[in-house]
Formats: sequence, structure tokens, C-alpha cells
Amino acid sequence: MKEIQSRIQVGILGATGMVGQRFVELLADHPWFEIVALAASDRSAGQRYSDATRWVQSTPLPSRVAGMPVRPCVPDLPCRLVFSGLDSAVAGGLEEEFARAGHVVVSNSRNHRMDRDVPLIIPEVNPDHLDLVTRQRFGSGLIVTNPNCSVIGLVMALKPLADRWGLERVHVVMMQAISGAGYPGVASLDIVDNVIPFIGGEEEKVETEPRKILGRLGPDGVDLHSVKISAQCNRVAVVDGHTECVSVKLRAPASSGEIVDAFGAFRGAPQELGLPTAPEFPLVYLPDDRHPQPRLHRGLGRGMTVSVGRLRRCPLEDWKFALLSHNTVRGAAGCAVLIAELMLRRGFLEGR
Amino acid sequence: MKEIQSRIQVGILGATGMVGQRFVELLADHPWFEIVALAASDRSAGQRYSDATRWVQSTPLPSRVAGMPVRPCVPDLPCRLVFSGLDSAVAGGLEEEFARAGHVVVSNSRNHRMDRDVPLIIPEVNPDHLDLVTRQRFGSGLIVTNPNCSVIGLVMALKPLADRWGLERVHVVMMQAISGAGYPGVASLDIVDNVIPFIGGEEEKVETEPRKILGRLGPDGVDLHSVKISAQCNRVAVVDGHTECVSVKLRAPASSGEIVDAFGAFRGAPQELGLPTAPEFPLVYLPDDRHPQPRLHRGLGRGMTVSVGRLRRCPLEDWKFALLSHNTVRGAAGCAVLIAELMLRRGFLEGR
Amino acid sequence: MKEIQSRIQVGILGATGMVGQRFVELLADHPWFEIVALAASDRSAGQRYSDATRWVQSTPLPSRVAGMPVRPCVPDLPCRLVFSGLDSAVAGGLEEEFARAGHVVVSNSRNHRMDRDVPLIIPEVNPDHLDLVTRQRFGSGLIVTNPNCSVIGLVMALKPLADRWGLERVHVVMMQAISGAGYPGVASLDIVDNVIPFIGGEEEKVETEPRKILGRLGPDGVDLHSVKISAQCNRVAVVDGHTECVSVKLRAPASSGEIVDAFGAFRGAPQELGLPTAPEFPLVYLPDDRHPQPRLHRGLGRGMTVSVGRLRRCPLEDWKFALLSHNTVRGAAGCAVLIAELMLRRGFLEGR
Amino acid sequence: MKEIQSRIQVGILGATGMVGQRFVELLADHPWFEIVALAASDRSAGQRYSDATRWVQSTPLPSRVAGMPVRPCVPDLPCRLVFSGLDSAVAGGLEEEFARAGHVVVSNSRNHRMDRDVPLIIPEVNPDHLDLVTRQRFGSGLIVTNPNCSVIGLVMALKPLADRWGLERVHVVMMQAISGAGYPGVASLDIVDNVIPFIGGEEEKVETEPRKILGRLGPDGVDLHSVKISAQCNRVAVVDGHTECVSVKLRAPASSGEIVDAFGAFRGAPQELGLPTAPEFPLVYLPDDRHPQPRLHRGLGRGMTVSVGRLRRCPLEDWKFALLSHNTVRGAAGCAVLIAELMLRRGFLEGR
Repeated sequence: MKEIQSRIQVGILGATGMVGQRFVELLADHPWFEIVALAASDRSAGQRYSDATRWVQSTPLPSRVAGMPVRPCVPDLPCRLVFSGLDSAVAGGLEEEFARAGHVVVSNSRNHRMDRDVPLIIPEVNPDHLDLVTRQRFGSGLIVTNPNCSVIGLVMALKPLADRWGLERVHVVMMQAISGAGYPGVASLDIVDNVIPFIGGEEEKVETEPRKILGRLGPDGVDLHSVKISAQCNRVAVVDGHTECVSVKLRAPASSGEIVDAFGAFRGAPQELGLPTAPEFPLVYLPDDRHPQPRLHRGLGRGMTVSVGRLRRCPLEDWKFALLSHNTVRGAAGCAVLIAELMLRRGFLEGR
Repeated sequence: MKEIQSRIQVGILGATGMVGQRFVELLADHPWFEIVALAASDRSAGQRYSDATRWVQSTPLPSRVAGMPVRPCVPDLPCRLVFSGLDSAVAGGLEEEFARAGHVVVSNSRNHRMDRDVPLIIPEVNPDHLDLVTRQRFGSGLIVTNPNCSVIGLVMALKPLADRWGLERVHVVMMQAISGAGYPGVASLDIVDNVIPFIGGEEEKVETEPRKILGRLGPDGVDLHSVKISAQCNRVAVVDGHTECVSVKLRAPASSGEIVDAFGAFRGAPQELGLPTAPEFPLVYLPDDRHPQPRLHRGLGRGMTVSVGRLRRCPLEDWKFALLSHNTVRGAAGCAVLIAELMLRRGFLEGR
Repeated sequence: MKEIQSRIQVGILGATGMVGQRFVELLADHPWFEIVALAASDRSAGQRYSDATRWVQSTPLPSRVAGMPVRPCVPDLPCRLVFSGLDSAVAGGLEEEFARAGHVVVSNSRNHRMDRDVPLIIPEVNPDHLDLVTRQRFGSGLIVTNPNCSVIGLVMALKPLADRWGLERVHVVMMQAISGAGYPGVASLDIVDNVIPFIGGEEEKVETEPRKILGRLGPDGVDLHSVKISAQCNRVAVVDGHTECVSVKLRAPASSGEIVDAFGAFRGAPQELGLPTAPEFPLVYLPDDRHPQPRLHRGLGRGMTVSVGRLRRCPLEDWKFALLSHNTVRGAAGCAVLIAELMLRRGFLEGR
Repeated sequence: MKEIQSRIQVGILGATGMVGQRFVELLADHPWFEIVALAASDRSAGQRYSDATRWVQSTPLPSRVAGMPVRPCVPDLPCRLVFSGLDSAVAGGLEEEFARAGHVVVSNSRNHRMDRDVPLIIPEVNPDHLDLVTRQRFGSGLIVTNPNCSVIGLVMALKPLADRWGLERVHVVMMQAISGAGYPGVASLDIVDNVIPFIGGEEEKVETEPRKILGRLGPDGVDLHSVKISAQCNRVAVVDGHTECVSVKLRAPASSGEIVDAFGAFRGAPQELGLPTAPEFPLVYLPDDRHPQPRLHRGLGRGMTVSVGRLRRCPLEDWKFALLSHNTVRGAAGCAVLIAELMLRRGFLEGR
């Protein structure tokens, strides 16, 4: 295992957006990483970060970062590792450029997630998929991705079920937070006293990405998991935290107590390796019928713990439950930072 | 068909509650009915209605009703027909008392809904079930009920599918409005920036009541429909209007166009009879992907039209769609008033 | 008084915006006016209205209007009278162009409100100021304006006080609805679980416009009223309805009862003339300490009545009270329509 | 100055309420205090704390406290120092009982705040007023109070103005958070898409308490400050954080820069003594016109810093500004804990 000698310099692409702000927040005092470059669109480039972004986090903008200049998004940043919170409209090409120039790109954007040679990683779920990068053809650079914000919480809850009993079918209906749409994102007139029963492109991701994450890494890449998923995505008036109502059909009989135990016992590589951003418990099961709730539980494990509750029989499938995960921490920037920590520990950040 | 000569005098039980207020609102200018008695708990009895209730509707409290005295809930009201918005903690016994005393009780409470000799009615769906009252043993009195607020919208959308293609399985996840919990009901600290993934007793009703409503009236009462339903109920920060995400498995193949046509063509007894509270269209299909939304569509048909949208294939069942219905109008008081109108037209309000 | 023979054809400039939608809603079934032209930016021109606008009103888009084509905003519309809901970034020049081409422009935009020869009208308050148009130099065209949305409610409540006791000082703090910022307007991340203590340019309007509206029309135009006003404007999570906390210093002693009576007795030209959009009561005083509230009272008088409550002594000025007015009806489109009705009755819409 | 040897044992009265929960949160890991007793109403007494309270904080219920038993509110707790978050309906008599039994009571309730011999303390503003306790006649016990939640932020911002320029008049309009009303407190139907322009008894407190806090301690007690205050209090849909719009008239001319400097330079005894709960900056001035905002700034200084912004000339008084303070931390439990820390350092917690 690699010893960390001095902090590794990192950059943030799309630093002024909602996910970019979370990267800043999570990396400002990181024990292993040090922000040395903030890149954003040409409109922002040249300004101080505090002028270029409208900071909407409830923690103060870290003062060291506030005064840093915003650079254009071109691959000459003074750091090998970059986190990408780029908008998917531009992320595809830009991330490839950065990789070809030798950067290791850990991306929150959807563009490369389903590429055959790009790992789609939740560190607790499929750390072994990182090996996919050996198939990449970007020279010394790499692209690694984290899943969609609503997929991460879902797959973390499904993983212990899939491992122990096998997973056949998943119905999921999501009530997603407004921060998931970025800033300005959802218009207030669309969400005060309202629900929007549609999020463009989201249901397709929820029905697809879990099959890759839960799949098995074989000689030809990832063999998709056979689970069938149906998703319905809604936007609700919640700032942070996606709530999901899930029904699952397993491949073997399970009892309620066994499932609760499986949720509570779930651990992964980040916990074993003691990664700095890893929560002690990736999953917690909350016994109160009224839980989980976004305002109360999104902050558990500093936003990295997924809460599960209301496990009960489903008259149609086998089991129903509710889950809650913080969409911009565990569901985006936090997951990406955890991936980078895992890559560092596993030696993926050394030159090759 | 009976001609209406003069307005029929009616009373409201539980008049100061949320559903009671909606009864007042809907009946204040009703062409057939005239409010002559408002009854509520002993705490309110004796006060003027405007003093006894905290009016939270966005229409003004009708001035004629404001000054009426609130009576105790005892069966000596000067009217045969009474609407009940009583709390279920007391509704069961009280409604029976009123029936035994000769009153016709149209109830919004859950207590008698599943009784074998009590009709559970959505006038557009199962008007024939009214005949169940002939089995009742309350002397000259009757009890008729309307379904749970979240069930009414769901069953109205399911009815044309069940009729034409047959209905096998229904997954439904609900995002219910705060008015459904009455006043004071949901604490604001529980719902601002939050979702509550639980509503006590609600899922059981959603999984049960539709089977009676969609059932066939036989010699021994209603044969429950065979459909299997799984429900998950959440509370969200919406004032009025329950939004529901539905997946259905039909018994025969259907095309998207056929289903949309079936929704749009749906009509029932209220439309045929021209009942005053009947909307022109019980169901509307909204083609915009972002619809239906509670703030925009709960008022369609003066709150009596159910909106459907986002029909698309379900990877697990056959079809998915979203629906929206006004929970305290179509889902409660409006449905009960429509039932009374139907009963009047069908001769159920004449002495027997 | 002019008799209305047939409906007068009218156009709407900026028809796809928030205020434009309210014009459509209020004019769709108007007894005197008929929408024949909808104009908007080049981006919308050429599309059907239902495609060009994102309708966010809680009443359905009127079907007759839905299919009308959107025209570009150039002064060749087939109607003399046009209502302008144009954005102030473009309204100034465009409205002048329309006036020079012979159109009568009733505008909700701020650009010409303080022009010396342009009337700034609340029909109940200063209908005589319409005579200012005789000073205009637009050929046969005219420009008439309504005040800022938050000013209208305030001045309506101040008018009876100014008339009877004289008005010296006004402190006002506003909690303004999100619809006041148009669509998409306020980002949901800025307003869910939040207050924004700033609305650009708004405080200046509130401190200025009332002095013109309450001023006296003299030989040289309007002599500004001497009242001194201090305003603080906030945005809160309310869809429609501006709530205002007011402290006033009068020029003569008044009692609480006299002031309440003065609010209740207030009437103006629209009530005397029976204008179609005029509410029976321009002001209502609500005795409940917890009133007025936007959700409960913004709809009074179909959105045209201003609600006042909580009158009590102020330790610093003389009296404090709270008021509530519907910002896009009474505070915008409804006021403009009422102005046009007044102009029609007073003969200002005849050719000259 | 006293050295802290071991942690001082403390109790919480009213431990299951909203303010009680904040006491638990702030004291669970306190370096000087250790929770040894939780007391609440008879309804809760005997239960585990986690069963007796509905925890609505966004941090988890501390596990050590969760399992503690709730005791009845009788003065036999095994600790001299108790924090009171009791409801004012019972706080008056109970707190006296505890004091007479020898307890030092630091209270958040309003009952004794204006008593002539009871200190009403904001540690940064009037730490010298603690000497008032020498006049108390409770034997070895004491009662010390913190001000109303909305008063604390206001007075902290007024203090540097009063000290340097003198303070003559204050107009303040408040937009208060729902947590200020406790749990269940404000009904969601009263606040979603709404504002309530009334909070019972609140305006009187805001117009009175600051005069005592800013007053001078003389031989006969506190001479009230001469400032005249007018307050208007509203409830808005914000979870935590009261926003206040203030106009002030000073006794001497000041410039904008001088006032901003005075806000920024403000420090008090807690900062000088390095008290554990003291924020580094009691006041911060935020230069962005759109600040302060509750969601963004209530957490500054871990909820103990008051944010000020939008300083500008007032046309009627001298200056206007907006301020924001966390109502249940700085405005309640946090202030009380800071008072106790100050008392400890100043020797008020030693036996006498």
C-alpha cells in the first residue's frame, strides 16, 4: 500500500457549477489532495473564483480558494489529476482532450459512463472495475466516471441484496432534489407547491447504469448484470437529498431481519482501506417508519452514508423499502473524491 | 328520472375540519342542495361556524354559512341527507347512529368503506354498486362511502384500462399533498425542504379499496377484482393535489395511442346524467412530458378532472404513467357531493 | 357615457411572459375586449402560442388563444389598443414605436412610468391623471402605464389615509412573491428554505412612484405628493401575492375605528362606473390577527381586492398594518385591463 | 481566571422540545459541560430520550444521550447547573423552584427576562449585567436568562452602533423561521406558499427586551436604554434563521464605511476569554447585495455568528440594513450555553 508523502495537486473542471462547488468544498481541507487549478467556461475564465461563481452552499466558500483565478478549460493545468463537474453538453470531448494530454480525469458527467473501456465506479460496490482503464487508449491519461446521482444510492442499497440473494427486478420511483439540476436549474415557479413528474434522460440512466456497476468484469469488459429495472423520476421541493421508493424481486427467499442485517453489515474497499472520505457505515437502516427523510438524514456520514428504511413485503415483488442519499455529496462530488482516493491507494495515480 | 323541485336540505358532519370546509365550499351555491345544519365536536358546538373553524381555503368562507351555529353531532338534524367529513376515530359509530335515525349518510371516512353492505362509490366508475344499500339494515337510513383520496384518482385512471384490456398488476408510488392530513395535520418542520416516506394506514387502503370499486356486484355483494396492487405513499410539500407514478400490467396487448384514446373517451353516469358537480371530462391526457403537475392541473374541471400524462412503456410491467388528482375535491368532498347527486337522480334519496 | 356596441380588438405585447399570460387569462373571456394579436420576441414569433409559451397559470390556457400565432413585436397589429407586458430591457423604445404608429399602449413596464406626460394610473386612486395624455406627442397614439406590482397595493391602502388625514411618512417592508420575477425568474435553490433580502431596482420604485400617483394634476403635470417613503424588498417562497408591513405617520389624529372604516368605505371610479374587472370592494379589512395571508386572500375579488389587517399603534410613527395584494393580477395585468376599461368609458379609446 | 479541571455536570429542562434538542446537540461534546440529566413533562418522564422526543435536527441524535432516561421536571437533578428550554406556560414557577433548591438555571424562556433582579444576557453585549444575580433571593440558586430568539441578532447588530454613535430609533420587520415555534408548531398548511403576518407576543418582546440588554447597570438595577423600537413579526417558510429588515436613527453622523468597520470590529467577552462556544466573529458584514440569506449564512460561526448586509441610507431614518441570525443556536440554546461558559469563567458557578 502506497504511503502518502505530500499532498497531490489536483484541478477541478467546471469548478463554478453546482458539482464544482461541492468539489471545492470537499477538497479544500483534504488530507491527500490540494486544489491548485480551477477551470471553467470562457465566460468565467480570468475572474477570481469568488466573482465567477454564485456560491450556494451552506458552508462558507473556503477563503484560500475564493481568491484563486479561474482558468479556461484547456489541458495545460499544473496537475495530473482533475475532477470533472463539466456539463454533459461539453464534457465528452473536453474530458477526452484532458486524458490524451496525460491527465487522469475522474468525471461526474454522463458522457463516458457506458463506454466499454471506462470504469463506472462506486468504490464500495465495484472497485475491481478500475482495471478497465488498462484497456483505455489515451496514452498516459485516463478517464474514470462515477454514476448518476440517483443511481449511486440505489445501487449501494441493492448491492448487498444482489450479493446474497440475487436480484431479478427493481421498480424505483424517485423524488429528486433541486440541487440535482444545477444552478439556476429548476425555476422556483415550477417547484414551490408543486411536483414535476419528469427529469430529462434520467430514467434511462437509472435503468441502465446499475447493470454495468453490478456487472462482472470479464475478459471482454463488464458483463452487464441481468437485473431489469423500471424507473420513474420526479423533482420535488427539497434542496439536497434524493428519496427513492424501491420494490425488488430477489432470486432467493430472504427474511426481513436478514435484509436489515445485510444493509447494516455492508462494507467495501473504502472502509477497509480507511479512505479519508469513506463513511464508517456506507448504509444505515433506520427503524422509524417515518425515516429516512432528506432534511434529517442527508448529512449522515458527512453526506456519504445512504439511509434505508421502511423495509416491508411487497404484494407484487418481494420487498419494498425507501432510501435516501445526498445527491451532490455521495451522489456526485463525494463519490468522485472517494474514487480518486481509491485510485491513489491502489496505485492508479502513479505515472505509467 | 326525478325532477328537482326545490333544493334539498343537507347537513355536514365534521363541518369544521378540512374536508368539512370543502363540503361547505362546494355546497354553498349548489343548485340542488342547501346547507341547513353544520355539526362538529362538542368543543365547537354552540359557536358560530366562522368562530369554530380556522378557514384555510383560498376562496372566502361563504357569508351565509359563516354565521350559522355549529351543532353537536347528534342525529336530530333537520335534514335527511348528511355529508360526513368526520375523523375516522369517531366516524364509525356516529355514522351508524345517524343512519339508524333515518339519515342518509354520504361519508368520506374510511370506517365503513369495506363493509359488505356499504357501497364504496366513484360515480363514473361503479354507480351500480349503489344497489348494495338494499342490503343495509339501518331502517330508513343509509350509509354510502367514497374511497380514500388517493384511491379515487388512481381508480379513475385504471377503469378504462380494466374495462378494455383487463388489469393484472399495479405498482403505484404517491406524492401526497399536505391538505390530505387535515389541519393542523403535517407539521411544517416535517415538510419544508423535506419528504416523509410514510402515511399511516394509507398503503393498505390503496392496495384494498380499488379491488372493491372495480369489482362486480353479484348476488352476495361485490366480488373483489383480482388485480394485485403495491403502493408506497409519501408526503410532499404541496398544498393540494396528489401525484401518482403508476406501472400497470394489462391482460391484453394495447398500444400507446389506444390507451390515450381510452383515457380521453372515458365518461360515466355523472356525465350522461349531467350532474351539476360532474366535470365535462373525468380524465384528460396531457401530452407535455412535464405534466401533470399539482399546481397547474389540480383545478381542471373545478377540481373534479383527473389528469394523466407521461404514458410510456414499462420495462417490467406493460405501461407507466403519472396522474394527478385534487385530493380534497375529487378525492373527498367533491366525490361525495357527486355521489349524492347521483343518488338523487337515481331515486335513492326518496323515503323508503 | 359610451355604450359598448361590439367587442374591441386588442393585442398583447410580450404575450409569452408571466404578465403576458395573465393578460391572456384576463382577456380571454372579457366582455368588452377581444384578443386578436399576440406579439413576442423574434424567438417566439411564428410559433403557435401554446408552443411558444410555457404556461404556468393554474387555470388552463384558453383554447381559442392556444392556437393563435405569435407575431413579432412590430407596430402593424390589427388593433389600436395593445397591452404591454414587455420586459423593461426593450419596452421603452418598442412602446414608443407602437404609440407613434397610432396604437394606444397600456403598459405594465417601468420605462415610461415617471415620464412627465405619461399617466401612471391606479383607476381607483387617480383616474383624473389620464388627462396627462393630452400632453403626449405621439400623434394619434398614447402611452398609459400602471405602477409597479408592489406599489399598487401599497398606494391603494394609503389613498384613503392620505385623503382624510394627510400622509407624512411611510416605512414599508415587502415580502414579494416569486411570480413577480417572471419565468424562469427566481432559481429554486435561491428560495426553498430561504429568503432573498434584495430585488434589484424595486426599492427605488416603491419610494418614488407613489408620490406621482398620489400627486395632484396641475397645469404643468403632476405635482408629486410630499410623502417620504422608505422601502425594503425581500423575495419569499410564495407563488403569488405580495405581503407588506407598513408604518405610517399621518398629518392629523385618527382612531383605529376611523381608519378601519376608511379602508372599508374606499371606492373609486371603477366601482362607480361598474367596470367589468372592478372588484366590488377595492380594499377589505380583515379582523383576524393572523390575516391577511397570500394563500388565503390573494384571490379576493378575483385577485383585484387588496386585503389589509393588523392595524395597531406604532411606537415610532402613528399606525402599523399589514397588506396583501395579488402581484400579477391587481399588481399588473388586472390593473392594466382596468385602466383600459376606464379609458374606454371615459372616451380615451376613440380616434382623435 | 478559573481553570477547568473536570467537566461540570449539567441538566436540561424541557429536553424533548425544539430548544431542548439544540441543547443536547450543543452540549453532547462540550469540553466543559457533561449532560447527566434530561428532564421533561410527565408525559415523557420514564422513557428513553430517543423514544420521548421526535428528533428533528439534521445532525444525528448523539448516541450517548439517546439511551438516557427522561426524568420528571422536579428539582432533584444530580447537577447544580441546568439549562431550561421549558415552555413559557410552565417555565416561570418551575425555574423558581429549581433556583430555590440551589440550582443555577440558565433559561431560554421569557418568564423572568424582565424581572428586575434577573440578568438578561447576550455575552458579547452586556456580560456585566450578570452582577444582577447578587440581588436575587433564591438562596444558593440563581436564574439567568437569554433574550428572545429574534432579539439576540438584532441587539448584537445594534450594540456597536449604540456604543459609538448612540441609538435613537429602530424600525424592524422580521421574517422568522418555523423552528422558532417549536414542534409541531406551525402547521404546514399555514406556511407552504404563504406568509403569516403575526407571531403572538413577539412584537412586544422585540420592542422591550433590547432596552434592558442595552441598558446600564446602576445601583438600582438596569436603567433601560432610551431607544424607541417598532417591530413587525412574520413567519415564513424557512427552517432555521430569522431575517430582519432594520432602519435605525443614530444620535451622531456616521458614514457607511465607519458602520461596516464597526460591525466587523465588534468583539466581546466571549472572544476575549476564548469561550468554547464563542464564534471568532460575532458579526460579519457581507458585501453582496443579495446577502445575508438564511440557507447560506445561518451556519456561519457554527450558528453563532450574526450576518449583516445591504447597509444603505434610509430616506426616513439614517441607515437601513438586513441581518440574519440562527434562531435556535445563537438565538436560543447557543446563547444560553455561551452564558454558562461566561458564568463559569467569571466564577458564578462556584458555590456561595
